Amino acid sequence: MRKECLENVRRTAPLIHCITNYVTINDVANVLLACGARPIMSDEAEDAAQVTSICAGLDLNLGQLHRTGVEGMLRAGRKANELGHPVLLDPVGVGVSDFRREAAGKLMEEISFTAIRGNASEIRALAEGRRTSGGVDAEEEDAVTGSGLERDAAFVKAFAAQTGCIIAMTGRLDLVADQDRCYVIRNGRPEMSRVTGTGCQLSGLMCAYLAANPTRPLEAAASAVCAMGLAGELAWSRMREDEGNASYRTRIIDAVCLMSGEELEQSGRMELL
Amino acid sequence: MRKECLENVRRTAPLIHCITNYVTINDVANVLLACGARPIMSDEAEDAAQVTSICAGLDLNLGQLHRTGVEGMLRAGRKANELGHPVLLDPVGVGVSDFRREAAGKLMEEISFTAIRGNASEIRALAEGRRTSGGVDAEEEDAVTGSGLERDAAFVKAFAAQTGCIIAMTGRLDLVADQDRCYVIRNGRPEMSRVTGTGCQLSGLMCAYLAANPTRPLEAAASAVCAMGLAGELAWSRMREDEGNASYRTRIIDAVCLMSGEELEQSGRMELL
Amino acid sequence: MRKECLENVRRTAPLIHCITNYVTINDVANVLLACGARPIMSDEAEDAAQVTSICAGLDLNLGQLHRTGVEGMLRAGRKANELGHPVLLDPVGVGVSDFRREAAGKLMEEISFTAIRGNASEIRALAEGRRTSGGVDAEEEDAVTGSGLERDAAFVKAFAAQTGCIIAMTGRLDLVADQDRCYVIRNGRPEMSRVTGTGCQLSGLMCAYLAANPTRPLEAAASAVCAMGLAGELAWSRMREDEGNASYRTRIIDAVCLMSGEELEQSGRMELL
Repeated sequence: MRKECLENVRRTAPLIHCITNYVTINDVANVLLACGARPIMSDEAEDAAQVTSICAGLDLNLGQLHRTGVEGMLRAGRKANELGHPVLLDPVGVGVSDFRREAAGKLMEEISFTAIRGNASEIRALAEGRRTSGGVDAEEEDAVTGSGLERDAAFVKAFAAQTGCIIAMTGRLDLVADQDRCYVIRNGRPEMSRVTGTGCQLSGLMCAYLAANPTRPLEAAASAVCAMGLAGELAWSRMREDEGNASYRTRIIDAVCLMSGEELEQSGRMELL
Repeated sequence: MRKECLENVRRTAPLIHCITNYVTINDVANVLLACGARPIMSDEAEDAAQVTSICAGLDLNLGQLHRTGVEGMLRAGRKANELGHPVLLDPVGVGVSDFRREAAGKLMEEISFTAIRGNASEIRALAEGRRTSGGVDAEEEDAVTGSGLERDAAFVKAFAAQTGCIIAMTGRLDLVADQDRCYVIRNGRPEMSRVTGTGCQLSGLMCAYLAANPTRPLEAAASAVCAMGLAGELAWSRMREDEGNASYRTRIIDAVCLMSGEELEQSGRMELL
Repeated sequence: MRKECLENVRRTAPLIHCITNYVTINDVANVLLACGARPIMSDEAEDAAQVTSICAGLDLNLGQLHRTGVEGMLRAGRKANELGHPVLLDPVGVGVSDFRREAAGKLMEEISFTAIRGNASEIRALAEGRRTSGGVDAEEEDAVTGSGLERDAAFVKAFAAQTGCIIAMTGRLDLVADQDRCYVIRNGRPEMSRVTGTGCQLSGLMCAYLAANPTRPLEAAASAVCAMGLAGELAWSRMREDEGNASYRTRIIDAVCLMSGEELEQSGRMELL
């Protein structure tokens, strides 16, 4: 099933419209090309809706958010909803400021999202309206660990039920759920957090998987999380002694590019809870 | 001749003002440094004209265009025209939306361009006012291939005559023409399209070649296309088994950095049609 | 002492708020992660002050400056001053245009900076209100060389006294001074100027060092300059024959990531003048 999800991206090469932060915009474009999709970036309000109309999916990322970008997101989101495209929200740093929280609120009010992907602190901030103090990384106490797994899965399913979205809460362990079912994914490397934007990349990748696998969005979303985590593992195994986080960044995207459906099927560690 | 064009860039180290999209802005800066030129990026309307005035060339790129960027492009373009600097237009995704098409139209009306560089779909959209649905990549039916070469060359020359610009239509085969002559260039690798921004990089490079070779702009533009294609080939030959599109991105810029005039002279495959 | 400065960054993992140009924003984020700090980027005026309030340091960079960014810088700067956070100014290209000069003037009027870091032309333009014509790189006649070292040190100390800031004037030789003392640092490689944004990266790094070493800001700033220069040397020694400036970019950040406190202590070449 993961194999098919990956291969559907390669086969259909979906065009993904990203309104995303400028910190990691190049990586998001290259990871989309790596997985077999095609990126187009446009965040100007006057441009966004028309760009969306030729695409197959829309990725909205709140990192380094600008007031003017929110208007572009709203217009693109409405158009994508009208056309039935999958729309993903990545609420980067949503607990950090009122501005980001209000923008996320407005987007969730006006746009019907297919999926929301964030780290544990972001998803909890979104669900509970909490402020966070850890920046754009997850805080220790929010992290999903083996011990609290069932409680965390229940929380994610409940938030999925409440929003009508697939919720992907990613970190040391990843949970991907709709209101009925929750996948836990055990791929990935802790070192991925030393590369800026691996979360943003995953959101782009997930959007491509959703666009290419419209009949099973939960499996598509979970497979994308699995693929990104596996890319992190494969990339780490290829690191040389004189390489650090910048080489790791390159190797992660390379691993997405080189990954076969068979590899994802065999080395993915993903199960229904 | 290609050798001289390349060496003139290294010798004069022209300062190139880029108003370019944020997706690939870092790569454009690094490819300019790689070829021996120097980049300066400024897209704020209040800053742009004064920045241009200390430069030797201006590169205007419509990717991920913002309304505010268009005003900066107009001011910088007028100043560059006044000073006689080469000005290049890269109409990224011009067929994708009314906003981009109208911006391109306004720029072409108010600024005298030295060269326009785009893929086949972009150049055709610009010439014929057509909409395109393939995003920022060329569509299959627009691609320049061996079989339609003469017809394509005639089209490019006619568009060059109409606009008074050098037209560079790049893809599997590249055509670079003024109203009288058309070069065909057979360098490059199809895998270059798996790296975001190789087109934007080429536009930056071309602008540097134009600035450093003011007496023969057609040869300069064609040599830049040839150098970028050759960089793609050399970079590909240096790829290891565990490398994908992100490593290829790095290796292409590296290849521009390492390329000698002799290599470009010997391995460039460029001829007048 | 350098060892301790480096290790304090790793130990405290300061969250650094950067308002910085989009050309090199990804590199600044990755170099902060490399050194053990954590980046957060936010340049929207409505977001900036609140983001700063959860951070430990603020890095303001004038590269590719936008009018709207200046307002964000002012709000974040005032908040950082209120909270006693170190604030760094990187006056990229300040001599290039009235817009950048005026923005720098306004920032220096309204914000109390802990440190200012720039190349020789930028620091001189800031100190003397001069225009420069060399773009964002230092001009030959401004460069700090062995012969004029005492005169340059006196200039830097005087500017430090006048502004109440630590002044870091970096280039072939680096000078880092407060009003009383001036360090000269002899690490680094000339090839670093072939990679866009090594100066921006250094500013981010310096901000992290200042935030993690609040009791000795001069030593922290000088140690950061030393670390960046040493990273350039180590990265250069790891270059292979088929690598150019894009690989060098990756290897420099890798070297920051891999550097130990012992290495910095032993191989740093930094002395009080």
